[in-house]
Amino acid sequence: MTARGRFIVLEGGDGAGKGSAIASLAAGLQDDGYDVLTTREPGGTPEGLQLRALLLAAEGEVWDRGAELLLMTAARLQHVRRVIEPALVAGMVVLCDRFVGSSLAYQGGGRGIPADLILDLHRRFVGDFWPDLTVLLDIDPAVGLARSRRRLSGDGVDEGRFEELGHNFHDRVRRSFLDQAGQHASRTVVIDASRPIDVVQQDVIGQVRTRLAQFGEVDGEG
Amino acid sequence: MTARGRFIVLEGGDGAGKGSAIASLAAGLQDDGYDVLTTREPGGTPEGLQLRALLLAAEGEVWDRGAELLLMTAARLQHVRRVIEPALVAGMVVLCDRFVGSSLAYQGGGRGIPADLILDLHRRFVGDFWPDLTVLLDIDPAVGLARSRRRLSGDGVDEGRFEELGHNFHDRVRRSFLDQAGQHASRTVVIDASRPIDVVQQDVIGQVRTRLAQFGEVDGEG
Repeated sequence: MTARGRFIVLEGGDGAGKGSAIASLAAGLQDDGYDVLTTREPGGTPEGLQLRALLLAAEGEVWDRGAELLLMTAARLQHVRRVIEPALVAGMVVLCDRFVGSSLAYQGGGRGIPADLILDLHRRFVGDFWPDLTVLLDIDPAVGLARSRRRLSGDGVDEGRFEELGHNFHDRVRRSFLDQAGQHASRTVVIDASRPIDVVQQDVIGQVRTRLAQFGEVDGEG
Repeated sequence: MTARGRFIVLEGGDGAGKGSAIASLAAGLQDDGYDVLTTREPGGTPEGLQLRALLLAAEGEVWDRGAELLLMTAARLQHVRRVIEPALVAGMVVLCDRFVGSSLAYQGGGRGIPADLILDLHRRFVGDFWPDLTVLLDIDPAVGLARSRRRLSGDGVDEGRFEELGHNFHDRVRRSFLDQAGQHASRTVVIDASRPIDVVQQDVIGQVRTRLAQFGEVDGEG
């Protein structure tokens, strides 16, 4: 991993505060001297943004769940090849809002596609490419959705679609995120996102700093 | 296969005359008393049409070849579930302009994705769902592309993208179509599409009528 950046993914349900956590984390890491790129899925490329608009504009269950997964994976492939990998090669810390963990949670846990199928699709098309560190902002869906409804969508796109799928759906999504964290405990940090936003932000940056320092020690990069 | 319609796919390179062949075939089969649905890939559903517009609007190789395959498969999945399967259940003859054979030819033969990966993706997401009969309109790409340039695109979408990929590309596409025909000879008809259009159309409808009659005998549907 010499001369390679670090790929850090923030995951979590709606209203967990990923956006503000990424913004404050990026500022903190830049203060530390890292070159930081912040990006998001599925909108991190022009192509992904178009696919995101297609998915979000659909009312009800227009897209078959398998088609939805294929589109998400296509956006992810574009995103990795065109944005994330080049930034990592350039030595940057890439902070990404959602990655394959969200497909496992939403298309898998939420909509019932087997996790093996999602992971196999990822390996075949995106490749053996995973986050160096995942920060899971964990929150009770009822609390997160109430928060989410109180704020306006930052980019003008209606995000109501996933939010109208019901509490059982969002409970399954949360369970999947927590299961993934358990399976990859060595490269996942679970943050209690129900606390005040400034507390959450400080916890995120503190834990990421610790992990980045550990990465450095292991790899001899300081 | 009792009480199920027939799924007939027309395949072939640009300028092979699939559009006019399907129109005349549909008219002929309706005269014979069949209920006929004509459709196309990737535009056979509103969602597929949006994906087709995304792919065709891109200049140059904007889409990774893997992402292109994922989008084509997503469009195919929507098309099969929402349009083709319901029509077959209703006993119709479905005439489809392109299907998975075009992914094998363009993303496989043309762009170099292994056929096994394309077929595996199809099986996992679309299912064990294949044409009852494929009509391959075979033509030298140089002849087909010259024809294609002379006509206006029927739906106003710029189809120049695939046509600008060069003759080597289109030779590989043709080779793939012919290889597929060889592998599935019992359910494929190869038509020499370099002949005058009315001759091609008569050949298509004659061969399809023969095959439909054979299907009927085998299944006892008359």
